[in-house]
Amino acid sequence: MSTGAGTIWGVGLGPGDPDLMSVRADRLVRGAGHVAFFRKAGRPGRARTIVDRMLRDDVREIAMEYPVTTEIALDDPGYAACLSGFYAEVSERLRDLALSGEDIIVLCEGDPFFYGSFMHLYTRLKDDVPVRVVPAITGMSAAWTATGIPVTWGDDALYVLLGTMPQAELTRRMTDADAIVVMKVGRNLPKVRNALQAAGKIDRAWLVECASMAEERAVPLSEAGDQPVPYFSIVIVHGQGRRP
Amino acid sequence: MSTGAGTIWGVGLGPGDPDLMSVRADRLVRGAGHVAFFRKAGRPGRARTIVDRMLRDDVREIAMEYPVTTEIALDDPGYAACLSGFYAEVSERLRDLALSGEDIIVLCEGDPFFYGSFMHLYTRLKDDVPVRVVPAITGMSAAWTATGIPVTWGDDALYVLLGTMPQAELTRRMTDADAIVVMKVGRNLPKVRNALQAAGKIDRAWLVECASMAEERAVPLSEAGDQPVPYFSIVIVHGQGRRP
Repeated sequence: MSTGAGTIWGVGLGPGDPDLMSVRADRLVRGAGHVAFFRKAGRPGRARTIVDRMLRDDVREIAMEYPVTTEIALDDPGYAACLSGFYAEVSERLRDLALSGEDIIVLCEGDPFFYGSFMHLYTRLKDDVPVRVVPAITGMSAAWTATGIPVTWGDDALYVLLGTMPQAELTRRMTDADAIVVMKVGRNLPKVRNALQAAGKIDRAWLVECASMAEERAVPLSEAGDQPVPYFSIVIVHGQGRRP
Repeated sequence: MSTGAGTIWGVGLGPGDPDLMSVRADRLVRGAGHVAFFRKAGRPGRARTIVDRMLRDDVREIAMEYPVTTEIALDDPGYAACLSGFYAEVSERLRDLALSGEDIIVLCEGDPFFYGSFMHLYTRLKDDVPVRVVPAITGMSAAWTATGIPVTWGDDALYVLLGTMPQAELTRRMTDADAIVVMKVGRNLPKVRNALQAAGKIDRAWLVECASMAEERAVPLSEAGDQPVPYFSIVIVHGQGRRP
């Protein structure tokens, strides 16, 4: 580990409302000389948007643009190779900047170590330069709060699943769970519905879009309609455990 | 719902480090005229301790002291009856205060809707007076951050389990999980170890005590020794999913 190197901070920004950032994240973002963030090419970037009114006038910005997102299937070997090259390239750029003595704040949606893209930089950088991580409120916490119903009681087992899982796997895991969170619902919503139906839990499910943001919408899934929902939508099934 | 009533805020304080409170929680706590918090009789209270240096000089404090904690077994009917009476009593006290026009900040460790005691007040109060909830960083987020290893990759399914579950149930659920969080480990640690062993995952498990606090300790479970650990200790098994 180089001495004199700057620190790369993976700073969790939470679910989207800047008021839900931690005091530490708020301070780090406002003081940042360099911020780096992932985004789709041609988009402003979700993480960058959260901190829109918080950055110093003289901040230097590093936009890390995903080379592919949904154009290639997740299980295509070309997908992993393409992303791997991308992560190696941006890691090298951040490493060089840190080695020159600069601190860098990497803006992370949600919690950095919970299904976050920052993890792919972290594993490539942590042995070379100082890397620190600031945990954050997860999107799922904002989602269950938005439903107005506590998610886990007593000894409820909570299973966090992904809408990208095969339907049979979703059904099996949903059947066994007391409380359920399904992340990355988006265009997987019909499959998630089918799995909930097969698991006998569709009547208890809620759909939450844009938790904590101005566009927040939390409704029982049975009232959600059939229109497309954002990629980061979350489905919640609340636990029914012990409650005195 | 009464008009002119004050609001009861369930404010999540996060894992313990005040610097990890949300900006919203920080502002609400510093401005509070009334704070309420749970504690064991004769103890300062964990939630109250987190905000030690943040309260107004003229704040009024409501200590809600659990009538029983570990003296009665969880599955003893007397336990639920005793706690039920307690929650009804403190809810009435907070309701009366809110109906008199006062706002009340209820200090909640972790995230209020995630295995929190506040939930028992929430269900008793939400139809009578305005109740709002501020989500927070969970203890488990602070715990996996403390291990220095990301918890979930790609399509990993994360199961959140309780140390209080029967060993066979723990084993079954652990076997099926990609990533695992076990909450409320405490004196259940030997049982949790046995379940991890039976599930073939003990070599990947970490033990985290006092995540985010001065006493934080995060070690591979195999190096943790046999001494007693705090009730709120957390065991983590990291996922090993897709990583480009």
